[in-house]
Amino acid sequence: MFPNVLEVARKLIRERVQPGETVIDATMGNGNDTMFLAQLVQETGKVIAFDIQPQAIAKTKERLEREGLAERVELKLASHEEIDRLDGQAGAIMFNLGYLPGGDKEITTQATSTIRAIQSGLQVLRPGGVMTVMIYWGHTAGEVEKEAVESFCQELSQLEFLVLKYQYVNQQNQAPFLLAIERRGQ
Amino acid sequence: MFPNVLEVARKLIRERVQPGETVIDATMGNGNDTMFLAQLVQETGKVIAFDIQPQAIAKTKERLEREGLAERVELKLASHEEIDRLDGQAGAIMFNLGYLPGGDKEITTQATSTIRAIQSGLQVLRPGGVMTVMIYWGHTAGEVEKEAVESFCQELSQLEFLVLKYQYVNQQNQAPFLLAIERRGQ
Repeated sequence: MFPNVLEVARKLIRERVQPGETVIDATMGNGNDTMFLAQLVQETGKVIAFDIQPQAIAKTKERLEREGLAERVELKLASHEEIDRLDGQAGAIMFNLGYLPGGDKEITTQATSTIRAIQSGLQVLRPGGVMTVMIYWGHTAGEVEKEAVESFCQELSQLEFLVLKYQYVNQQNQAPFLLAIERRGQ
Repeated sequence: MFPNVLEVARKLIRERVQPGETVIDATMGNGNDTMFLAQLVQETGKVIAFDIQPQAIAKTKERLEREGLAERVELKLASHEEIDRLDGQAGAIMFNLGYLPGGDKEITTQATSTIRAIQSGLQVLRPGGVMTVMIYWGHTAGEVEKEAVESFCQELSQLEFLVLKYQYVNQQNQAPFLLAIERRGQ
């Protein structure tokens, strides 16, 4: 079976991130990607994870502590538009667009701030690094956001970035798909 | 760097095809995929390759003979719409849509016969097998064909097939992209 979109995103990141690097979870949510990234960068690395909902911070903090991973993770109750305040560069940046699973479905990422956050992230992405954007668009604001993000990505300079779209096209219910942006160069 | 679309197609096929299997090159052209498939199925396997242009047959035959691979390949001067006459099943089927590189650019695959050929191919694709369709659409008839093939693939039953679209979206010049169709089951 072809791998699902989440597995593909993780594989692209795993192939690029080195132990000891700094990486970013732009949409912490329930902390799944934060946990994945914390394991990947190992003890000497650092994960910076963003969310604007306190319950995301609380839940992720608890999970990290349970696994002994809390020390290498910085949890920020802030908008991911602030990613570019990072001191240095990131080897990987993960976005999951949509709402917090199990949370308030009315609180979703929004096209305008998502684009700003992606722009902000690309500022700090190192050459050879990758940004993955998982697009869940089966909710009201999702289709607008999807269109905006796709248009933005199509316009990125092909000299600087390579943008891959990985999508299963015969699925019903607006299945999520992946956009992965690699910064060229080493 | 992300792998290019051709590498992805070959990787999907390599992961699924067993030595000794029968596989199909639906659009022989200059024989690149025929050669690749002939190496993959090894001595006990079989490749059936289609083209309607005699120069494709001649060129591919010469290449196969030079590499000692001719015995395991059947070259058919026929439309790929006849794929379903195959006795048995195929583990992989490759399509390259467009014109013969270096040949007459006015002779291209066409939407209607391409759809019939894909349908014909899916009839003989074994469970767990994969069909790759590389879509070159930078020529006059290409855009119509692209739309037709994409629509057809989107309608394929998700119980029977999984259809992956793999595309670099910030490229200029209507870069080729890949549709890969896997038949579910083992």
